[in-house]
Amino acid sequence: MHYPTGIKVTKNNNINYANRGMTLEADLNNTNHYYLINDIAVVYKKPTPITIHKVNYISRTNAVIEDARFQIPSTTDYNGIYKGKYIDFEAKETTKNIFPLANIHEHQIQHLRNVHRHGAIAFLIVRFTKQNKTFLLEATKLFDFIENNKRKSIPLNYFEQNGYLIKDTYNPSVDYIKIIDILLKEN
Amino acid sequence: MHYPTGIKVTKNNNINYANRGMTLEADLNNTNHYYLINDIAVVYKKPTPITIHKVNYISRTNAVIEDARFQIPSTTDYNGIYKGKYIDFEAKETTKNIFPLANIHEHQIQHLRNVHRHGAIAFLIVRFTKQNKTFLLEATKLFDFIENNKRKSIPLNYFEQNGYLIKDTYNPSVDYIKIIDILLKEN
Repeated sequence: MHYPTGIKVTKNNNINYANRGMTLEADLNNTNHYYLINDIAVVYKKPTPITIHKVNYISRTNAVIEDARFQIPSTTDYNGIYKGKYIDFEAKETTKNIFPLANIHEHQIQHLRNVHRHGAIAFLIVRFTKQNKTFLLEATKLFDFIENNKRKSIPLNYFEQNGYLIKDTYNPSVDYIKIIDILLKEN
Repeated sequence: MHYPTGIKVTKNNNINYANRGMTLEADLNNTNHYYLINDIAVVYKKPTPITIHKVNYISRTNAVIEDARFQIPSTTDYNGIYKGKYIDFEAKETTKNIFPLANIHEHQIQHLRNVHRHGAIAFLIVRFTKQNKTFLLEATKLFDFIENNKRKSIPLNYFEQNGYLIKDTYNPSVDYIKIIDILLKEN
């Protein structure tokens, strides 16, 4: 997906320095790097899982993967530790006014159920790119939606009512740890 | 690395059903799968990190990676959750009587320091293949060794004195959670 590189203007006419043309993945990488270097949390994106079929060992230090395929991920993309707690989440963007559940693999939802049951802080981070709004939705709210709805998409207003808006900030650009602090206080 | 596929006989002449020709990685995959299906813990090996240079999109569902390179990992290979605790470890085999520190990247040692500081249960699992002994060594004992020794390898007896022998069992074959239970009781 490609995004415009210009500076976006938010509703209140302030210049929005965050997310200017960055994908959610890039923003999260920057944010997690910020957390790491400031010793706030240790969270990484997992590498894309692939099956390697052919490697050409050109020299001892130079191996070229010449045939590999993408695998369906068994887990979410992000996990790590914050204040001694295991955190685990999946991050997705949508260009629509709804979040299609097809964007998350069944395995990933099952993974969120598994880690939640074991005490993880488990959630989704979903960005609605048109609205330039990024939400944290606790995994339990995702499970609630799935159990109580036949719809295959979660509407934006479900995120507005049940999730937490992650405010656009400059650095880090997706400061989701602020929301986790709220969750930890509530529990 | 290749290992004989025959059944090994342990010192006390019992047949050792565990580790028969399996690599530590395969044993840990089986063990983590056992923990998952028995709802004991949720631990996964991270995919091998690679940089993709060329993908051939043959069709909508068939993408072939035609040029990619291995990256040096920034983190350890394994992490997950057990009893609400974040666990993180690296697993290595050695065919020698010593464990060469060069087997772990400097980034990975730094990662163990980072997650330990944030409250993780952080450790190494090291298998001495000749002796067919697999140890869990807490990350703090690894740091102690590095700080107090100029040696570039950790001898087997350091593991015997400072680590925990993980007993060979049938299923799961590397039951490291038993050791974590000991560590949790001690702390």
